[in-house]
Amino acid sequence: MSGLLISFEGGEGVGKGTQVGLLKLALEAKGLEVELTREPGGTPIGEKIRHLLKFDPDGKTMTHEAELLLFVSARAQNFSQKILPALNAGKIVICDRFIDSSVVYQGVCRGLGVERVQWLNNFATQKRQPDLTFILDVPVEVGFERVHRRKPEVQMALNTMESIAPARDRMDDFGLEAAQKIREAYLAIALGDSGRCVVVDANRQKEEIAKEILNHVEDRLAKRAAK
Amino acid sequence: MSGLLISFEGGEGVGKGTQVGLLKLALEAKGLEVELTREPGGTPIGEKIRHLLKFDPDGKTMTHEAELLLFVSARAQNFSQKILPALNAGKIVICDRFIDSSVVYQGVCRGLGVERVQWLNNFATQKRQPDLTFILDVPVEVGFERVHRRKPEVQMALNTMESIAPARDRMDDFGLEAAQKIREAYLAIALGDSGRCVVVDANRQKEEIAKEILNHVEDRLAKRAAK
Repeated sequence: MSGLLISFEGGEGVGKGTQVGLLKLALEAKGLEVELTREPGGTPIGEKIRHLLKFDPDGKTMTHEAELLLFVSARAQNFSQKILPALNAGKIVICDRFIDSSVVYQGVCRGLGVERVQWLNNFATQKRQPDLTFILDVPVEVGFERVHRRKPEVQMALNTMESIAPARDRMDDFGLEAAQKIREAYLAIALGDSGRCVVVDANRQKEEIAKEILNHVEDRLAKRAAK
Repeated sequence: MSGLLISFEGGEGVGKGTQVGLLKLALEAKGLEVELTREPGGTPIGEKIRHLLKFDPDGKTMTHEAELLLFVSARAQNFSQKILPALNAGKIVICDRFIDSSVVYQGVCRGLGVERVQWLNNFATQKRQPDLTFILDVPVEVGFERVHRRKPEVQMALNTMESIAPARDRMDDFGLEAAQKIREAYLAIALGDSGRCVVVDANRQKEEIAKEILNHVEDRLAKRAAK
């Protein structure tokens, strides 16, 4: 049986990294094989692209279009070289950010348009969507407070953020107002695709959140096994 | 008045590099400002992408989709950062390979589909097409002989080729049969867009070819001035 493709999405400070790690541990404890991937990256080519995005040689001159195409190129490579083979081997693949990040950050926030980003995502992933997408949701102020309060985890959050808005100074464009826009864009995606997306109230203890997420994954695995 | 965007296209050994250089000299001799660009490249970001395409860190594992997206990313950056500002400044921009190369090499030869490549080209160039495209045409055997015979120019031809099929060994995929396919694909583009494309018999003395090309460019400039 083909594996399960799970993505984690949400704005900064929602705790994606923590939940990705907890889900991996829980599934492995059940004897399941899990593959983690991050975007952009995951492959040698993807990591080179990540580096290019992070250290934009032109400073702030990289166009939004060129940026999006680099993200999608890394995704295409990661999908064919890593994700698809893992799924074909029956593994559970967990993506820390995936197609919806591009829709939200480049399509909505950069204003490149949702449909154009969806077209590019389909091109990169051969129209394969995640089986399950967890959209971790917290009020914007909570996310901000988390990012600024918890020092050791800031770095993780920032690393994730960089995968969307690579240069540090470009990142700063995403202020509180943008964070609100990001949150709303994620909720709109969930509303439009409720069969795939689960909005998780991430303004709770991490163990509680992890339990809810694991329940969803187990449900999905059980349903597939019953087919 | 906005400048003029001219692209040179054609398979290997048709003499694009030579004709690009001769046209630039001829136009500059008339006091016109000319900007040359190559793909992928033209900008610091584009050159980094070129490097990534040439030295594929994964060896032969780069997917066709990721490759195409990298080419188009470099094109998007080059178009916004270099080509468009030059056109807005009234300059003549000459591209050694442009949108049609992706259609022919990735769309047709790699089998990614002409329409999908056109969609990506439109995304990268904001739907701006060249005003004039010279498709240099020689019988396939002549192109091959030229590439193999003229040592100093081989390097130039190979450099250009690399901009399409970056890794040297991937380049070798394009044999005589592929060269025929490339030629036919270019002729099909010219047939479908005769207002933009001029097929030039490039199996002649370079001075003769250059004269014909210059005549076309002068015609176009005169028509624009008369408007």
